[in-house]
Amino acid sequence: MEIAIVGLGLMGRPMARTLGAAGHQVRGWNRSPLDPALTAGIPLCASLAEAATAELCLLMLADSAAVDSVLATLMPALRAGQLVVDMGSSNPAHSVIHAARLAEQGVGWVDAPVSGGPEGAAAGSLAILAGGAEADVARALPALQALGRVTRVGGPGAGHTAKVINQLIVGLTLQAIAEATALAEASGIDPALLRQALAGGFADSKLLQIHGARMAARAYVPGARVATQLKDLRLAQALAAARGLHLPHLDDTAARYARLVAAGHGDLDHSALHLLLREEQATG
Amino acid sequence: MEIAIVGLGLMGRPMARTLGAAGHQVRGWNRSPLDPALTAGIPLCASLAEAATAELCLLMLADSAAVDSVLATLMPALRAGQLVVDMGSSNPAHSVIHAARLAEQGVGWVDAPVSGGPEGAAAGSLAILAGGAEADVARALPALQALGRVTRVGGPGAGHTAKVINQLIVGLTLQAIAEATALAEASGIDPALLRQALAGGFADSKLLQIHGARMAARAYVPGARVATQLKDLRLAQALAAARGLHLPHLDDTAARYARLVAAGHGDLDHSALHLLLREEQATG
Repeated sequence: MEIAIVGLGLMGRPMARTLGAAGHQVRGWNRSPLDPALTAGIPLCASLAEAATAELCLLMLADSAAVDSVLATLMPALRAGQLVVDMGSSNPAHSVIHAARLAEQGVGWVDAPVSGGPEGAAAGSLAILAGGAEADVARALPALQALGRVTRVGGPGAGHTAKVINQLIVGLTLQAIAEATALAEASGIDPALLRQALAGGFADSKLLQIHGARMAARAYVPGARVATQLKDLRLAQALAAARGLHLPHLDDTAARYARLVAAGHGDLDHSALHLLLREEQATG
Repeated sequence: MEIAIVGLGLMGRPMARTLGAAGHQVRGWNRSPLDPALTAGIPLCASLAEAATAELCLLMLADSAAVDSVLATLMPALRAGQLVVDMGSSNPAHSVIHAARLAEQGVGWVDAPVSGGPEGAAAGSLAILAGGAEADVARALPALQALGRVTRVGGPGAGHTAKVINQLIVGLTLQAIAEATALAEASGIDPALLRQALAGGFADSKLLQIHGARMAARAYVPGARVATQLKDLRLAQALAAARGLHLPHLDDTAARYARLVAAGHGDLDHSALHLLLREEQATG
């Protein structure tokens, strides 16, 4: 396929290379100029208007505001038969609106946020949560399958919703692991031995093994940032509120991330819930 | 080794058979009489006093109260050089006291609670969290290694503490999965597709795949009981309180399990946090 990748950041660059290696005709565009060393081997578009001519416009941007801004420029240039695929973690409510507006022009829409980071993008092993009309997801599959394992979870916005729910599970489980780590430490049990003992059982998870180790080492180096996790949990809260759902641990975990951001810890890893817990004990 | 297993319940019986198959000389004793069909192939002791003559007395009882009661009878009969191994999920504070009293008689102590259920006991694939003096754990190893994978996490009581922390992680993660499942359902996303999409990623766990499926199916059939999970979380709260730790999600999850018990749901599976969440939305 002829693919334009809008957003050549930490994720967009390895995605461009992986798609190119899979035989797709890839070009890239970035809102701000990038060091040519970073984009070596990726053909660049001269403008967003040029990107808008591709069969598939793939967006890999920082947040919903960036997607909204890029789409405002892109939409008038798009023609019937083209396809927009938003692979960032955006607001599902915006995705529903974008999909409807593009449909009026005969342009397809897929939201396909990912899990697996730059390593997964480079290896073509991302987990891809796809939302969109069945026909649109089917058309995007040759590109998506080059990047990883695709699951269509529903119509437009469902992919972004699933990603928000992914972040809900991650954030709340990190609080569980922070409390477990704090209790192990206070009880004189080496958290590393505890992780080894629990490996493979019902309490085990990647989060316990990877982020539990970061907590025990006080190595809150991202990884994924506190500020990003707060943004995602606020999206989850907005989704829940729109459906009249009260989710108590979601609300409390979002408040805890907000406290970390307010204390100047927004750039730490999201495992810093453990730091907050330690600071609370010290001052409580 | 010559092993007496005190407690021939759902766990004790397969443990007796697995130890026997591994070449140990096993006898069993149960507080209440059991249907002979259940204990077929397991030589029985005529009395607890007879069990007290074994080189290794292995306790597999329902709770700390049962352990305290059995030990009150057992202790006067024990002699220097014997070993008591408590493999149930008991109160770590009691274990420290039992270990000290037995040490005065020259009797060794290991707390070695397990994860993996009757299937793990039958297969010899339990995860075993061992606490005790290094020499005592070393002496118990021939028996313990026949039953599963052993990790020594610290001195007397550390095994029971680690099991309590295991239960903390399980309970709090189940609340995370309950909230995620409720949000998926309210958003029109099939939880089964969501679990499939998240498999292998950071949000994934055995709890998501197994208990998430129970929640979506409203099949709150134990598994592990709500009342047991509440007992274990209260042990975790007692541990935290003794160390001056405030663990907010532990306290809230324990309160949620207590609400389920008060509503008559104590015998449901611990995934019934999802039922509570649904009932709260209906009445909220």
